[in-house]
Amino acid sequence: MIKNGMKECSVCHSKFVSPSPRSVSRAYDKHRNQVSSKYRALNFLLVVGDCILVGLQPILVYMSKVDGKFKFSPISVNFLTEVAKVLFAIIMLLFQARRQKVGEKPLLSISTFVQAARNNVLLAVPALLYAINNYLKFIMQLYFNPATVKMLSNLKVLVIAVLLKIIMRRRFSIIQWEALALLLIGISINQLRSLPEGSTALGLPITMIAYVYTLVFVTVPSMASVYNEYALKSQFETSIYLQNLFLYGYGAIFNFLGIVGTAIFKGPGSFNILEGHSKATMFLICNNAAQGILSSFFFKYADTILKKYSSTVATIFTGIASAALFGHTLTVNFILGISIVFISMHQFFSPMAKVKDETQVGKLEMIEAQHPRDVMHLYSISNVVRDSPSSH
Amino acid sequence: MIKNGMKECSVCHSKFVSPSPRSVSRAYDKHRNQVSSKYRALNFLLVVGDCILVGLQPILVYMSKVDGKFKFSPISVNFLTEVAKVLFAIIMLLFQARRQKVGEKPLLSISTFVQAARNNVLLAVPALLYAINNYLKFIMQLYFNPATVKMLSNLKVLVIAVLLKIIMRRRFSIIQWEALALLLIGISINQLRSLPEGSTALGLPITMIAYVYTLVFVTVPSMASVYNEYALKSQFETSIYLQNLFLYGYGAIFNFLGIVGTAIFKGPGSFNILEGHSKATMFLICNNAAQGILSSFFFKYADTILKKYSSTVATIFTGIASAALFGHTLTVNFILGISIVFISMHQFFSPMAKVKDETQVGKLEMIEAQHPRDVMHLYSISNVVRDSPSSH
Repeated sequence: MIKNGMKECSVCHSKFVSPSPRSVSRAYDKHRNQVSSKYRALNFLLVVGDCILVGLQPILVYMSKVDGKFKFSPISVNFLTEVAKVLFAIIMLLFQARRQKVGEKPLLSISTFVQAARNNVLLAVPALLYAINNYLKFIMQLYFNPATVKMLSNLKVLVIAVLLKIIMRRRFSIIQWEALALLLIGISINQLRSLPEGSTALGLPITMIAYVYTLVFVTVPSMASVYNEYALKSQFETSIYLQNLFLYGYGAIFNFLGIVGTAIFKGPGSFNILEGHSKATMFLICNNAAQGILSSFFFKYADTILKKYSSTVATIFTGIASAALFGHTLTVNFILGISIVFISMHQFFSPMAKVKDETQVGKLEMIEAQHPRDVMHLYSISNVVRDSPSSH
Repeated sequence: MIKNGMKECSVCHSKFVSPSPRSVSRAYDKHRNQVSSKYRALNFLLVVGDCILVGLQPILVYMSKVDGKFKFSPISVNFLTEVAKVLFAIIMLLFQARRQKVGEKPLLSISTFVQAARNNVLLAVPALLYAINNYLKFIMQLYFNPATVKMLSNLKVLVIAVLLKIIMRRRFSIIQWEALALLLIGISINQLRSLPEGSTALGLPITMIAYVYTLVFVTVPSMASVYNEYALKSQFETSIYLQNLFLYGYGAIFNFLGIVGTAIFKGPGSFNILEGHSKATMFLICNNAAQGILSSFFFKYADTILKKYSSTVATIFTGIASAALFGHTLTVNFILGISIVFISMHQFFSPMAKVKDETQVGKLEMIEAQHPRDVMHLYSISNVVRDSPSSH
């Protein structure tokens, strides 16, 4: 933490602030251990919130359809969602600034903003990746039917874990890897019924180009999530609303460029962003925006994998609720699939499955833990040094 | 171990020799640790042997059919299998007796036989349960179709684990319980395709009486296996061939009584044991017998759960082999199912998932381990005391 702070201070004038990935993960772990019970409560709230928002989604989608079709351009939904997120971030930032006590670093000063913008320039990377992903989704549906796309999306969880290992230097035990594989299998079994009849034998008509598209389709959003987690955590001191403002600001810009590009390519007809929208679609956009904002809380205070589990649990609850409300029978696939998902979830978060940190890093942290006061003292000094205007 | 030996000595005149279940399991664990690498090799051979025998089964069944039907009485197969096992046990016993060195306790003396018969009277319990199970199989098929019976049979693995916990005082970690649940789920997913179309929704036409039959159908063979394991291990010093002789002797008697009962009930027509048999059915009977004998090795030197995993792996290899030989395509269900089974297997036998023995029993074993010589000495004395003719 000390080293981390010092480093940031000395490279302050350079454009990229890059603490080592291991130290990001370590600083976060330590931070997490210190306020463990508070974080567990936050995790719980995040999961509950996510379940509600994901659960509302299909209802809002249903309500947004007119005569069973969407009347608006799907690309405009992405742009409006980004705008809604930016608005939300600004509102929350204003609230937070109001509640600031005297003597605290002012949230809305230009120097804070410029400094944060400089430190958080990394957020442009996930924003770009998310924007690319929004376009990829449409391309994928030219090659595969929606059910197959859904199936292939499940591979994301494994790709995310690999990227977390590479980018965040997260370490998983064998049982945790197996738990992730089980999550993938569990979701797939749950979806097996929705696949068209012919494709249940493994002879899918997959060409080489489709393999490449699949790889890109799975890697881009996974990379976006993991990079987002990395960027948000590496600047842990920056307010999450300010980080959101940057992330979604970049997102809005990239999506706007996309719309402009489409307009140039297809003519100005597709430029009418608000065409075909109704009250229901506004709710849908708000729901999408809220899900996006909740994700950023997941990435900063929990992690991408908890987000994945949360979405899966949300889907399960939606399934159970719709069965209870509309009297559907639960299929054997559903029962077996969710059993696997729950076992997977328990195993992934089980203390038995956790990797024990036996490296020197772990030992150093232990020494730090034995002298928390000194470390906190030095940390606060390093903060002051870094944040003082004289260092710019 | 000392206590164990002493106890057996003092209750020698009573009909039941009953060392505490915990001490049986403990004595076995200790024995196992001492010769760990040798046992691992034996386990490997057992699994390979089991795979070969289970793999041959469908081929022999196919060959035994004349015009797609069996011409012999299925009950007679059970009886002839028991007889084959008895013959095999006698032959092996003769071989073993020949190879005995001078000074060793004679295997074929009447006193040894009587003593062993008295000590191993418990084997009558699994023999009776197995015989009952052979009849239950026929009853079950009146209530369920064969695919459903196969599905319900999967529940055995969980029932076996519960019985091992109760009877053998085996302890499983949460991850091991989950691994067993995954085994059950994995096998079920593999079999889902073979279920008739209508029954994939969970609205199976199950009546109360069918529930009771299911419970009995699942518990009886599980109880037989676990009790068999308990009986074989609790008299660890008795030769396994002698134990087999008793087990299958009892089995032959119970099955013979069944045949006699059927003959009385249905008339003497069904009494003709050898009717309708051919060379192929003799091979089938030999295969059944060999599987039974291999089981007893599993129960004595490994355990019932390894046997279950072994059978599952055998089924998987049969599936892959038949796909490779006959050009079947592997279904998504098969791929997902076997992935789950392999993850389950790895987790069950993973050192990470093992329960650490922290009770007083564990501490006592540590003390014993520190003074192995004294213990072995006392143990050999207790053996001599028990085995000397004066104690009878």
